[in-house]
Order: sequence, then structure tokens, then C-alpha cells
Amino acid sequence: MQVLHPRNILFAAGLALAGSGPMQAQTRATTLATPEAIINVTWTPPDYPVPYAPASVAEIEAVMGRVVDYLETASPVRIVDAETKQPVASLDALPSRAVLERGDFALVSYEWGVTYAGMLHAAAETGDARYTRFVDERLHAIRVLAAHFAAIPQGELPRRYPLRSVVAPRTLDDSGAMAAAMLKAAQTRPAVGGDLRPLIDRYLAHISGNQKRLADGTLARDRPMPDSLWLDDLYMSVPALAQMGRLTGEARYHDDAARQILQFARRMFVREKNLYMHGWVAGMSDHPAFHWGRANGWALLAKVELLSVLPESHPDRPALLALLRDHVRGLAAAQGVNGLWHQLLDRPATYEETSASAMFVYGIARAINRGWIDPLAYGPVASIGWNAVAQKVNARGQVEGTCVGTGMGWEPVFYAFRPVSVYAAHGYGPVLLAGAEMIALRKGKGADAVVHDGGVHFGKVPSRLW
Amino acid sequence: MQVLHPRNILFAAGLALAGSGPMQAQTRATTLATPEAIINVTWTPPDYPVPYAPASVAEIEAVMGRVVDYLETASPVRIVDAETKQPVASLDALPSRAVLERGDFALVSYEWGVTYAGMLHAAAETGDARYTRFVDERLHAIRVLAAHFAAIPQGELPRRYPLRSVVAPRTLDDSGAMAAAMLKAAQTRPAVGGDLRPLIDRYLAHISGNQKRLADGTLARDRPMPDSLWLDDLYMSVPALAQMGRLTGEARYHDDAARQILQFARRMFVREKNLYMHGWVAGMSDHPAFHWGRANGWALLAKVELLSVLPESHPDRPALLALLRDHVRGLAAAQGVNGLWHQLLDRPATYEETSASAMFVYGIARAINRGWIDPLAYGPVASIGWNAVAQKVNARGQVEGTCVGTGMGWEPVFYAFRPVSVYAAHGYGPVLLAGAEMIALRKGKGADAVVHDGGVHFGKVPSRLW
Amino acid sequence: MQVLHPRNILFAAGLALAGSGPMQAQTRATTLATPEAIINVTWTPPDYPVPYAPASVAEIEAVMGRVVDYLETASPVRIVDAETKQPVASLDALPSRAVLERGDFALVSYEWGVTYAGMLHAAAETGDARYTRFVDERLHAIRVLAAHFAAIPQGELPRRYPLRSVVAPRTLDDSGAMAAAMLKAAQTRPAVGGDLRPLIDRYLAHISGNQKRLADGTLARDRPMPDSLWLDDLYMSVPALAQMGRLTGEARYHDDAARQILQFARRMFVREKNLYMHGWVAGMSDHPAFHWGRANGWALLAKVELLSVLPESHPDRPALLALLRDHVRGLAAAQGVNGLWHQLLDRPATYEETSASAMFVYGIARAINRGWIDPLAYGPVASIGWNAVAQKVNARGQVEGTCVGTGMGWEPVFYAFRPVSVYAAHGYGPVLLAGAEMIALRKGKGADAVVHDGGVHFGKVPSRLW
Repeated sequence: MQVLHPRNILFAAGLALAGSGPMQAQTRATTLATPEAIINVTWTPPDYPVPYAPASVAEIEAVMGRVVDYLETASPVRIVDAETKQPVASLDALPSRAVLERGDFALVSYEWGVTYAGMLHAAAETGDARYTRFVDERLHAIRVLAAHFAAIPQGELPRRYPLRSVVAPRTLDDSGAMAAAMLKAAQTRPAVGGDLRPLIDRYLAHISGNQKRLADGTLARDRPMPDSLWLDDLYMSVPALAQMGRLTGEARYHDDAARQILQFARRMFVREKNLYMHGWVAGMSDHPAFHWGRANGWALLAKVELLSVLPESHPDRPALLALLRDHVRGLAAAQGVNGLWHQLLDRPATYEETSASAMFVYGIARAINRGWIDPLAYGPVASIGWNAVAQKVNARGQVEGTCVGTGMGWEPVFYAFRPVSVYAAHGYGPVLLAGAEMIALRKGKGADAVVHDGGVHFGKVPSRLW
Repeated sequence: MQVLHPRNILFAAGLALAGSGPMQAQTRATTLATPEAIINVTWTPPDYPVPYAPASVAEIEAVMGRVVDYLETASPVRIVDAETKQPVASLDALPSRAVLERGDFALVSYEWGVTYAGMLHAAAETGDARYTRFVDERLHAIRVLAAHFAAIPQGELPRRYPLRSVVAPRTLDDSGAMAAAMLKAAQTRPAVGGDLRPLIDRYLAHISGNQKRLADGTLARDRPMPDSLWLDDLYMSVPALAQMGRLTGEARYHDDAARQILQFARRMFVREKNLYMHGWVAGMSDHPAFHWGRANGWALLAKVELLSVLPESHPDRPALLALLRDHVRGLAAAQGVNGLWHQLLDRPATYEETSASAMFVYGIARAINRGWIDPLAYGPVASIGWNAVAQKVNARGQVEGTCVGTGMGWEPVFYAFRPVSVYAAHGYGPVLLAGAEMIALRKGKGADAVVHDGGVHFGKVPSRLW
Repeated sequence: MQVLHPRNILFAAGLALAGSGPMQAQTRATTLATPEAIINVTWTPPDYPVPYAPASVAEIEAVMGRVVDYLETASPVRIVDAETKQPVASLDALPSRAVLERGDFALVSYEWGVTYAGMLHAAAETGDARYTRFVDERLHAIRVLAAHFAAIPQGELPRRYPLRSVVAPRTLDDSGAMAAAMLKAAQTRPAVGGDLRPLIDRYLAHISGNQKRLADGTLARDRPMPDSLWLDDLYMSVPALAQMGRLTGEARYHDDAARQILQFARRMFVREKNLYMHGWVAGMSDHPAFHWGRANGWALLAKVELLSVLPESHPDRPALLALLRDHVRGLAAAQGVNGLWHQLLDRPATYEETSASAMFVYGIARAINRGWIDPLAYGPVASIGWNAVAQKVNARGQVEGTCVGTGMGWEPVFYAFRPVSVYAAHGYGPVLLAGAEMIALRKGKGADAVVHDGGVHFGKVPSRLW
């Protein structure tokens, strides 16, 4: 729930007048009105727009718990007989025309792939059965339903039948994120109750074999133009390749994953800002660079997901680590004054976007936890970032302020006014990933994190102030 | 006319409270309130601050038509006998003391030189007689009046007599823009009804012979300091030199025009931002760089005007093209989140300025049309830029939000609070130029421009989304 | 007093609604509503947020006079007998348990060291006895009280006794700024009535001998982390070392001062922006750079204080001058659209901060006056900066908008919301320094400063406009 902060009362007035979100303001610091307040200022926290101290594990778990409780009801397994309109009671007795009823969110999508991965990570860090139950029940249903539809002759199915993307994946959006989640589940969740491998193999066949590539092997799409690179596609491929390499031990998966990251970066990582552009099209002589937040989130996640499983000896590991550090440097420099990141990372005039912010918190916290970046430098970035993201989880457990699915644009208006919604599914997985990794941070390298002499510090601070 | 957009209601409230313009806000994206809205988002345009889709030729012509209709009445040819105060009915019977009455705008000025050029370009792209009539009638009157005053002995004229700047030009502001317009008219408008060449020759004599120059030949002024370069002077010289070179075939005009552009750039083009500073003074050891929008507009226009007529074989052509491309790169990166450019291009906290925005739309659209820059990269920039500029043309045909004539400053307050007015004549020519060139774009390389997968694209897009 | 400017009425309305400071706005230029207003615009000053023309000496003195009158009452010498609670009438008859009563500001602190230095500078430039009286009376009292407490056996004193920091300095905050003020007074103020040298020697012994240093001699603290560099410490050491070198003629003081500046810069000066980061910690692999205004102010002051007394022949002088020029370049580029600088210099979304702004005005004006930087380039920056700072001095003589004492932070929220107060003592010395140096500028190299063709110019302008 977003509590109305005194600083935001004018914004609220603005809201009342306009029926819309907050305006950007120059930050308003608390005014201390007495000499005594000055004497006490070292010990009195100022009036921040978000909670300032590093969140405790319990506080983080509380936020995540609201999210899983909401999603449990908002993303149910509900199968209906298309002919009788009756609910189907058991997956063991599916009618020939089964339909999956949609709650607030569909059970299968790339966004929900991230959500399943987030639930698995939350389960691992908290031990809370709500997260595992969410995954087990849904992946089980998907597996059974996919088998059901796969058994129906192709000619008898409509073009857009339920779980088409599982049965016959034809894009990276269909494949990568769901595959990565299933690969993680396959290795840890016997309770899914069946073999996910055939589904996984279909996904990987698409990524490794069928998806369009440039001549150098870089994954591409013919959308919006022929031979377009979408930064988002790093997540729609790399985590699945990373996990498949880990599962199978076949080097080609990791080699391809590393290659994608390095080849995308060569074209789309803008060194002056240490940020990526969103889109790139073969043959365009110039690429106006729009540093879209979420796309940078996908690129960060792809790197940490791969580095998390890539053998220490892999020859691309140093280049990947260097790229990760540069990216983190650029992201830290772009964090907004309220702790969130902006829709266009280098444009503070664009709105603060939640899904990207959560991805950055996850990626940075993970990079600290794994020893890839300095906790002293980046712990405070992750900590205040989490606190700001947590404020965007409302009392119902909905994640507010997430940009909806977004194509490619070549001018700023497109990105700056892209709609937001609690029903944009992209926010949920990242919030769970971020929370889970922040728990790991607060239990490990960030256990000593403290507000000291006013600021947050992720290191052992001396006991005295001088 | 500026229609009140829901997003701007708070701004309007602000206006009501303050009696002044809109405040900067963090962009407010539409909030989608239902899961269904998310499913439909690919097909439902969000709530943009300006029309989003590329404007049609008819839409562009409608905006330009409002402008010419306003100017026809706001900038009339009205001659009065200074002694009898009676209107003069015919140019063929001028009294000895004729006075030119001023409407909202004077008939002769550097700004109106741009307006005449804009009208001629609008005429060429639309075939609409309103534009040619505007030019023919006024240049005819100017020619006849100038001859009238030139025939009066110098000693009998007051210091500030009408058309002094035509009869005896003594600055680049007097000369370059009017000369360029007359040169264009001289080559295409027999209906002006007489020989403009004597006037043109006087202007060119000033530019090429009398105007102060630095030792290396760069055009300079002793204003505000001795040996000052004004970026604006690129327009007050180069288009006239370019057209004179084309008319006469004498190489020295094009050589000088190219030299001005390259020598100004050497001193005033800031590579880190790919933008120009406004002013430069010989002997100053440091030049705090203020990237004033309109000055960058003049510099862009000068380049495209020269490149439009410079022979392909001219040795400076590659350097000019490279500079143009760098400048366009910098300008595209500076476009504001509402599609307009800011008064100080690199400072989004300054107001959005119309004349500069229109110049950039013209220059970028022209550069696309001539094949100098990539339509895929820059078509969307020009398109949304035009849509935003068009919103600044009110129902009466007045161009709102144009900065008034501006000297040189060395601190940001000067530029940031420079007044704006519909009576700042600088906005009109650029809007006509921009509109005309956008028509050419929409009929040619941008004929296929389309909103596809949410974004504007200036290329042949595939018919399907994946 | 801050007069309500038409442009700020909405801000005032905002204030009324929110009970807090102004919001950031896109600048609102005056709208000129008639053609006549356009014709007159060269001669009519627009509606600026601050007075635009260079302030006269009398105007500057009036602002400074309000400040000294306020401080005379707000920072009194008031000694009380801790046992009888009676005021002590004479410093010649101190009771054994004397206590210094605090007004709005304490008599001894690093901030007040700057205030004393500012008073001495104001006295020198104005000849006004109010400034000397303020210093003489207070340093006399400090000297006598310090001797009184020094004579009491250590064991009989509480841990936090009055003037502990004078009697037994143990940090750079205790030492440097007070030492610099006393060194200046010792050389010019016989009316202090006694020898300050023993106090000065104790301070310098701390700086040169006792303060923690890195292996290469750079002054460091174990706060907030072991081996931390605080940019602020350049002021807490360099001016004292500079003055001690001048007083004693011993080269080691100037050598150490120059070394501190150069070694801090090597670690903390960010070349891309020509600005310093606030904090640096040995062993951190990365330093997210927060360009805190006041810290940059300390670094600028340290450089100009040292250069003001460093022999022309000192081998580090060229490097120090080059660094100064780079820093001024970065600061000029960061000046905000209202003439002030922001709390985080490169983030216009943070509030405008007064103490840093005043420091920059002082440092830039001093650098012009001494011939180190170009008056044409930087005079206007200092001039409008002063005008904006002067607006922050209210009718009572209080300096508004100064950030309170600030630790080190590694994320932007910490700095962006740091409280402000008229009781933050850091604003007063800088305002006096800035005013005094602006007087020197207006009497010397800026005597011809003028608004010409709209803009402020610090050079001899031609008498005509073309």
C-alpha cells in the first residue's frame, strides 16, 4: 500500500485534479526549524520519500507474501469444458474441448515464465510453501494440458488454441522464459509430478534451431523490421540456454548463451552511458538510442543468470563479468532520486518504472552475493532500490507502476507515455526475484548493513563517528 | 488550436492559478485498469500528449493553411502618405513621403526572409496559390518601394527610413535571409513582376565584401564583443551564398558558404554532445557552451540549404555531410519527451521552443528526402516532431511558443527565461518549411510510414508481428 | 526576504497545499502579448526569477549587512557560571565552572571558522567595522576561555567540555577551518587582544602530525569506513596549511597543501564531468560518484585559498591552476536555470542548495579577480549566481536553503532529501565570502559589467549594437 507521504500531498492534489499520476518535482528536503534540530540531525532520520534503512528479512518476506497471495487467486488453474461450459474438476479427465479460463493473468507467457522463476527463487530463500505450491500446481497443469492438446491432430485445432505456444513454440517470447522456469523446476521440483523434459526440448529446439539469426548467429526477429535485434531477447534465450547447458553438460548451450550476450553488446551497449539501447535493426546506418529500463533489465538478468551457472573456466567469463560490471556502473549512475529507475533510464523526465527497478535490484543484489561486484559500492543502491520497489506493492499484493508490453520505437514520445498497469504481468517475477535475492543479501554479505552517520553502508563500520 | 488534453488538466489548473504556462512534469502514462486493456494494448493507442501517427498530407496542409491565412492579414502591404495620412492606392503612384504601415509583422526582416522562403517551399510542395500570392505581392511591393527610396537623395532621408535595410544593407541580419528568399523567387516567380537582381546584388555585396570577418575569413560581428561569432549568422549568409552560387555559377560563393560552415563548426560544434554553442568571442579563453535551440536550427538550415545546391563534386561536400549527420545525431538525442525540443537543447528544465523544433523537423525531413540520413532512424523523429509543432499552431494560425529575438548570454538564466510570443516572427517560416518538407516526406520516402506494434516506423514493415 | 515573484505564484500555491518547498518546473518565459512588445524587447528586461543585472556594490553590501546584523545577535558571547547560573560579566574573572551559552550558532565549529574568515574578508573589502567587531570579540573570548580550560587538569574536565575542540583538537573538523580563520586574524587583527599562536600551533600539530593519512600522505578518516577520503577535508586542512606556510615561510606546509589537492583529485575528480565525487574509500573497487554541491564547494575553496598565497614559483602551481580551471568549467556547466546550483550538481531534480552556490560564486569571482580565469566567460556566472544567492538571504539576515551537515552516501536518495535549515551554519561564511569577493569584482575587473543586447557581459562592450 502506498501511504500518503506529507511530501506527496501536492501530488495527491494534482491527482485529484487530473485523475492521473504524480508530477516530477525538484526534491523537497525537510526544513529543520530550530537550532536544536540541527544539533540532533545526525541522529534524526530526515523525511525520505521511501523507508531509508535496509529492509529486514521479515519486512521483505511480508512484501513478497502479499504478492504470492494475490497471484494465487489472480492466476488460477481453471479449466472449462468448451461445450458444456462446466468447470473441469480433474486434469485426469479432460474433455476433448478443454479451455483454460484466464484470471487476471494467463498461466503461460514469457512474463509468467519470469514469475515461476521468481517463485522458485523465493521458495529457495524463504522455505515458504506458498511459492512452491504456486509453481507445482501450475506447471503440472500446463504439462498435462500440453500433452492433451499435443495429442489432438493439428487440423482439428483452431489457430489460437490454449497452450499453442507450449505445444508448438514459434517465437523467442513463446520459448525462453518458460523454458528457463521449467528447467529450474525440472531440477528441483519433483512435486510438479511429471517429466517436463519434452516441453523443454521443444522450447530449446526453437531457440537453438528454428529462431531466425543473423549471419554471425545472433538471435534476431523480423519485427518491426527485417533482421531486428530486441534487447529483450537476451532474456528470451540466455537463461534457458544457461540452464540447458547446466542440465545436459553440453558446452554448445553455454557457448551460444555467452555469444548472444557479447554479440548483442557489441551492437547495442552504449559505452558513454554504460547502458544498452532497446532496439537495433540490420542495415540502419544510425540507431537513435533509447535506453528503455525494462530492456536493460532483461539484459542484466541474462548476464547474471548465465554467470550463475557458467563454469569458472569458460573462456567468455571474464568478458561477461567485465560487461556486467560496466552495466551495473551505468545502472547505479541512473538510479532516480526516489530510489527507482526511470522508464528511459537517462531521462528523469520520464516516469519511474517498477519492473525495471525490480530487475536491477535483483541483478545487483545477485552480483554482490556472488562476489562479482563490491558490496560497499552497490549494497546501498540495491537496498534503497528494494525499499522503493516495495512501496509499489499495494495492500492487495499488486505491483503498481509497471510498463505494459512494449514494441520498438525511434523517438522518445513512444517510450515516455507507454501505459502502466497492475495487470502488466512483467512486474511480478522481478519483484519476487528482487525480494528473494535481497533476503540472501541481508543474510549474507549485507548482514551488517546499517545506517551510520546518516547514510546506508554495507560494510563493517567503525563504532565511533571519527 | 491546442485542445485540452486530459493529461494537461493539472497544467491548465496551474495556468489558472498562475496566469502562465505549463510546468514540467514527470511523464504520466495512462494507467490501464483492467486485464482486458492489457490484452488489447497492442491495438489500442495510449494517451499521448500529441497525435502519434504520422500526419497525412491533408492534415499537414490544413495546419499550413491556417498559417498562411493568418499571415495574409497579419502582414499586409499597406502604404500611407506620411503627409496626408491617406492610404496609397497604387505602387505606381507613390507620394514622396511614403510610409509602410506595419501589421503584426514587418514586410522586411531576416525572419520574414525565412517566411518568404517557407512560402515558396510550401507553394512548390502543395501547388496552393495562397503561398505564391503572399510572396509575389510583397516582394513586388518591396522592389518598387526600394527603388522609390533609392531614388531619393541620401541627405533627404531620415536615419531610419522604410526599407533602409534593403536600400543600404549594413548587417548580416539585413542581408542574408532576405537575399536567399529573393534569389529563390528570382529563379521561380516571374509574377513578382520585376528584376530583383539589383537588390540581391546589394545584399551579396554586403555579405561577400563589407561584413566584418576574422583573419581566416569567418564572418563575425563586433557584438556583443569585438570579433564575436553568432551561430545564427550561418543562416544570415550561407543560404544566400548557396543560391547566388547556383544562380551565377561562380565557385567563390559556394566555397565561401562551405568555409563558413566548417570554420564555425571548428570553433563552436561541441563533439561530446553533437550540438553547437550559440556564441563565440575571439580571445575568450573559455566558452561556457549554451546550446540554444534556435541557433542550432540556423546551423542545421544552413547546412541543408547549402547541400541542396552544392555540386556533388565539391571537395567540402563529404565534410559537410559528416557534420550534418553528427548534428542530426545530437539533435535526435535531445528531442524532448513531448516531441518538441527545449530552449536549451541539453536542459529539459527549460521550456519547449517552437521555432527551433520546426527548424529541426524541416532539416531532418529534408536530409531524409535527399538521402543524406536514414529514414528508418530519423523519420519517426521528424514525424512526432511535426505533430508536436503542429499542436503549437493555434486556431487563428498563430505559432505559439516561439522565443523572441535573442542576444548572446554566458549563463543559463538568460536563455531559460527568454520571452516567447506569437509575434516572434521567427516561428512562421520554419513551420512552413517543416510542413512543406514533411509533405514531401509523406509523398516519398515516408509514404509507407506506419504505426506498427505500437511504434512509428518509416520502413516497409512485415505484415505479421513475429 | 524572498519577494513573491509572479512566476512563483503556483509554487506558492503548492506551498500552501503542501506546507513545503517549491517544485521543479520547466522554466516559464514571459509571454509577450502584442507586436509592440516584440519591437521593444531588446530594451525591456524579461521577467527573470532573480534580479538579472550585475549587483552594485551598495546592493551587495546591503545583503551582507543583514547577515552580519543577524549573526551579531544569533551568535553571541554569553558565558554563564555553571553553579550559580549567573551570567559572567567579564572574561577577566571567569568562575571555575564557566559554560558557553549557545545562541542559534556555537562560537566554535568548522562552519564558524568559515564564518570568521568570511567576516575578515568582508571587513577587508568594505571597511565596515561590524565585521571586525564580530571577529575580534569572539576570537578574544575563545582565546581566553581556551586558556582557562587548558589550565584545568584534564581529569577534572567532563568529556564534552566547552572549547574541547580548541584545547585538544582531535579531528580535521576541529582543526582546519578554525585554524585558517585564526591564522588570518593573527596576521591582521591586533584587536583580538592576545596571541592566537598557541591555539594555531595545536591545530596545525593535529593536521600535520596526528590526523590519519593513507600511505601516500593523503589525509583520511576512519569514517564511515576505514581509510575514507572526504572531499570536505580539503577545506579542513588546506587553507590552514596555506596560511601557516605564509606565516612561517616553511615550505612543508605549502607542499603538503598542494599534495592534498592533487592526490584527492587523482582519486575523486571525475574528468567526464569536471566535478568531484563526495567520498572515496580505500579498497572499494568502484565508487558510485555523487557530485554533492557543498563538497565541491570545499574543494574549490581549498584551491583558491592555496593559490592565493602559494608562491608563483611553486612547482605544483601549474597543476593546481589547471585543476582549478577544469573544476570551474564543470561548475559553470552545472549552474541551474535559476542561477543556483543543485544539491547534486549533475541532477537538476535535486533541490537548489545555497551554501554550495555561495562557495562557487566566491571561488569563481576570486579566480577572476586574481587573473586565473577569463572574466568574459565566468563573470556572468558569478554575477547571476550572486543575485540568486542574495535572494536566499531573508529580511532577518538568515541564509535559507542550506543543507545541514552531511555524511557520506552511496545512493541518490540520501543526498536528494538531506534537510535544509537557516540554522545550518554552513551557509553564512560562504555568503560573506561571496559578497566580499563580488564587491572586489565589481570594483575591479567587473567594473564595466553591463546588460547589453539582453545579456550580462563582463567586458568592454561596443557602444552600438551592430
